[in-house]
Amino acid sequence: MTKPHGSTSSQIKALAFDAYGTLFDVSSVSSCCEGHFPGKGAAISDAWRQKQLEYTWLCSLMERYVDFWELTSRSLRFACRAQGVEPGEEALVDMMESYLRLEPFQEVGAALESLSRSIPLVILSNGTPEMLLKVTRHNGFSGFFKEILSVHALSVYKPSPRVYQMAEESLGLPRRQIGFVSANGWDAAGGRAFGLHTFWINRFDRPRETLGYEPHLEISTLDDLEPLIR
Amino acid sequence: MTKPHGSTSSQIKALAFDAYGTLFDVSSVSSCCEGHFPGKGAAISDAWRQKQLEYTWLCSLMERYVDFWELTSRSLRFACRAQGVEPGEEALVDMMESYLRLEPFQEVGAALESLSRSIPLVILSNGTPEMLLKVTRHNGFSGFFKEILSVHALSVYKPSPRVYQMAEESLGLPRRQIGFVSANGWDAAGGRAFGLHTFWINRFDRPRETLGYEPHLEISTLDDLEPLIR
Repeated sequence: MTKPHGSTSSQIKALAFDAYGTLFDVSSVSSCCEGHFPGKGAAISDAWRQKQLEYTWLCSLMERYVDFWELTSRSLRFACRAQGVEPGEEALVDMMESYLRLEPFQEVGAALESLSRSIPLVILSNGTPEMLLKVTRHNGFSGFFKEILSVHALSVYKPSPRVYQMAEESLGLPRRQIGFVSANGWDAAGGRAFGLHTFWINRFDRPRETLGYEPHLEISTLDDLEPLIR
Repeated sequence: MTKPHGSTSSQIKALAFDAYGTLFDVSSVSSCCEGHFPGKGAAISDAWRQKQLEYTWLCSLMERYVDFWELTSRSLRFACRAQGVEPGEEALVDMMESYLRLEPFQEVGAALESLSRSIPLVILSNGTPEMLLKVTRHNGFSGFFKEILSVHALSVYKPSPRVYQMAEESLGLPRRQIGFVSANGWDAAGGRAFGLHTFWINRFDRPRETLGYEPHLEISTLDDLEPLIR
């Protein structure tokens, strides 16, 4: 754990986890992209993720919700276009399916197993219910979570306060007693603005967002959580 | 003009222009950034713009509006941090003020002058009224516009449909009779989703967005507009 910041975490009664980028490494699709477009895997994967996030924000603001699977597909097509390649249908399907088999970050499985023994855990994610079911099953994580909460039921993406409210409603706890764990700085800011007790996982020593909503605590990996919530 | 796409533009009775990136070259701040941080001007300028846009989307979705001047300042601080530099107060002020003296793209002055003789023009922008007033005055463009419309009155940013509706209300015209001109692909998509007649200026041969709302016409510069609206 690095750089503690803010209040203590002793009142936390449940943990809500972001999925993509927090539990699952979105860059693990890059080897699949690399297989289809040698020398461009990392660039496609990076552009894909950036555009995927942009499209969630834009669709929400336009009040034209499109589900995360479709946006993931559209952003992949943009990323390929931006890299000057035009994938065929088979390559597109293959790259999209790699999104259902994302690898977790190294410590995640053991940390979730351990945490789930002492406190209820849920996922709170932009993914569709089906995508989330598949990627958690693929990684053997299904049993760790009390519930998998998808924005799909609301037709709006993070960081809308309506999304964070879902955790409150589902867990039946006041927001300050819910620990929200995200490696996406903007998502941590959204959770904090709503009033969740927010942990920002900064695995790659990224600069802190300047949105105006600081996480309660900045940690390095999920391993830092266990001593905090006892 | 390149790649015509969609319906004709003969019914257009007024033009609404995006400001930043469309009339004014946001990358023209890079020389000022370069003066303060040699070798990093372009990188800071690019990250600044990207983060500025992200923050407009995020604040809007979080329902925590912060005005464009403040977001521009916050995103500049993030961009510097991401480049590993820590500007003093004086450098920050200087870089921020360069945003009030953005240079227009080369053809803009003459094209606006000519267009303004045949059709009403307005600006429809994320900027604060003060920022927009200053940058249009600095460039001698004030006389070309019937009105300068800022999202500030609504406390929400593009591409919220409420923003595009402002053009409709201000001009007193049905949306399909308003030509909306933006070089920002996502902004053109937002205008199109709302129902404006949308021109996407693609100056730098960028890939087309895959958001699902195609511009009515893709053009290269403002010079392409004149023959279209006659």
